[in-house]
Amino acid sequence: MVTAGREFEMIRRYFQQPARYDRSVVLGIGDDCALLAATPDSLQAISVDTSIAGVHFPADADPFDIAYRALNVSLSDLAAMGAEARWFTLALTLPAINDDWLAGFSRGLFQAADNARVQLIGGDTTRGPLSITIQVQGEVPPGRALLRSGARIGDYIYVSGFLGDAGGGLAASLGQLPATAATAALLQAYLRPEPRLALGIVLRGIATSCIDISDGLLADLGHILECSRAGAEVDLDRLPLSPALLATFNRNKALELALTAGDDYQLCFTSPLGADALPVNGMHCIGRIVAGNDLRLSNRPADCQLETTGFDHFHD
Amino acid sequence: MVTAGREFEMIRRYFQQPARYDRSVVLGIGDDCALLAATPDSLQAISVDTSIAGVHFPADADPFDIAYRALNVSLSDLAAMGAEARWFTLALTLPAINDDWLAGFSRGLFQAADNARVQLIGGDTTRGPLSITIQVQGEVPPGRALLRSGARIGDYIYVSGFLGDAGGGLAASLGQLPATAATAALLQAYLRPEPRLALGIVLRGIATSCIDISDGLLADLGHILECSRAGAEVDLDRLPLSPALLATFNRNKALELALTAGDDYQLCFTSPLGADALPVNGMHCIGRIVAGNDLRLSNRPADCQLETTGFDHFHD
Repeated sequence: MVTAGREFEMIRRYFQQPARYDRSVVLGIGDDCALLAATPDSLQAISVDTSIAGVHFPADADPFDIAYRALNVSLSDLAAMGAEARWFTLALTLPAINDDWLAGFSRGLFQAADNARVQLIGGDTTRGPLSITIQVQGEVPPGRALLRSGARIGDYIYVSGFLGDAGGGLAASLGQLPATAATAALLQAYLRPEPRLALGIVLRGIATSCIDISDGLLADLGHILECSRAGAEVDLDRLPLSPALLATFNRNKALELALTAGDDYQLCFTSPLGADALPVNGMHCIGRIVAGNDLRLSNRPADCQLETTGFDHFHD
Repeated sequence: MVTAGREFEMIRRYFQQPARYDRSVVLGIGDDCALLAATPDSLQAISVDTSIAGVHFPADADPFDIAYRALNVSLSDLAAMGAEARWFTLALTLPAINDDWLAGFSRGLFQAADNARVQLIGGDTTRGPLSITIQVQGEVPPGRALLRSGARIGDYIYVSGFLGDAGGGLAASLGQLPATAATAALLQAYLRPEPRLALGIVLRGIATSCIDISDGLLADLGHILECSRAGAEVDLDRLPLSPALLATFNRNKALELALTAGDDYQLCFTSPLGADALPVNGMHCIGRIVAGNDLRLSNRPADCQLETTGFDHFHD
């Protein structure tokens, strides 16, 4: 961590906080490294994600939303592992130091951090095209992590909430939709994804595999199938589509968004347990794991155009 | 970690490696998170650094050097803490997928990784302006980390090797110097910094404070002084200046580079032990810690222009 001059003041002003939540941060921001006391007998779960202006979010987006979304997108990977979120770092590249922008960004960042009870332990600030890299670190007991590789033939396939809303919200954020209550709800789903951290922990010992839906159901379920060397049958009639999505798009377009648009950050998981036996409500059973390596879609409307080849890209 | 299509293949081809060195990586690249088994009773030392094309290195630099330097710059923060280097992540933003470039980058990355025996455990690849964010994680026994805050009045101040060479090498990399054997040596110091990891570990219990010199001696010793609430007297006649530096610049310019140019990634540390009592050779005693909060330079040539105010920037 290299800090000098105005960057040093910026960090003090916007990013330095007293220790929160627990005593695990032995040394926080301000030395060459942060020092953490990990929980004995836990595994450390680590993930990093970069968000770039103009690619992952509009450069003129509200800085609160940029930060809130960037941290939650990273935390979603901890949720998908069934890990408890603990700490994160922020590598922030900025074209210039703008106090209003930084104040909003800092508020969004710590709002998301407080929601998840994760502590910012360090980072780096550099000058350049706007970009945010967040690395999250969580903990999970040995043998309890939710992997992509454990789905078994006969398992039920679940998703944890509405799919496609964030895809619709992306279109709204690009000004492609009329401003209605429904499109406002979709935009919110896109800008303010919530990592399903509590759900991930509940699913330890329940889910045989799990992933968060960042790239769309087809691509992400495809990762589970590839890692688990299995196939799946998904019933399109069972995909959870929100009233806001169906009020905004016809059903075929809504299905396409649910299957391919991503950014919803719901969990997709498999379990031998039927919906009645799950220890958590609100899960949507959308199909079964089957032998083979195909992802088959049933009840697909004849006139519904879908790019369903995403999964096959990953075969050797 | 979100990966799809060509990015997925790129990661497999250039960045996925079997587990190396030890069994601490329970789960590596390819799931939502990596899973690590930390060493019991160790603290986790964490640092992150971003390098941006056109800011931290020329966009057309050799990709081997870009990667080698980026990882070593991050590892240097672990050295400065006295931590043992263990794992790292790579967040790589690329304008396009270029196989020749990636092959060189990957070779440089793993050359530096193998030298330090650190394992790549995960990352993210995104499309955008060329930028590299590397987070390193190491381990240090509780109470043994080298902090910036422990310097005491009377301590000797040491640096671990030549200063100013990388600053000269930066000028060489920008084509500002004639091509000579001396400037080639300076360029090498800039492009291929070596983290002083073994030295950092040796200094546990020896150094009262430590920092790596990334921003120049004045700025980095300034951080020690601020954190330790002390002052320093530095004898400019005792700064280690390399034959290559003195063959390329007059002494005043060499001193200026040694004091302010940075990028050398030598360690600066304090210790109550005199040079004869240090358990390691090759350290250069350059001064003493004193009361107050000034950084005073003795034997400063009357005609030597220096920006010596860097330290004061950090006072409240």
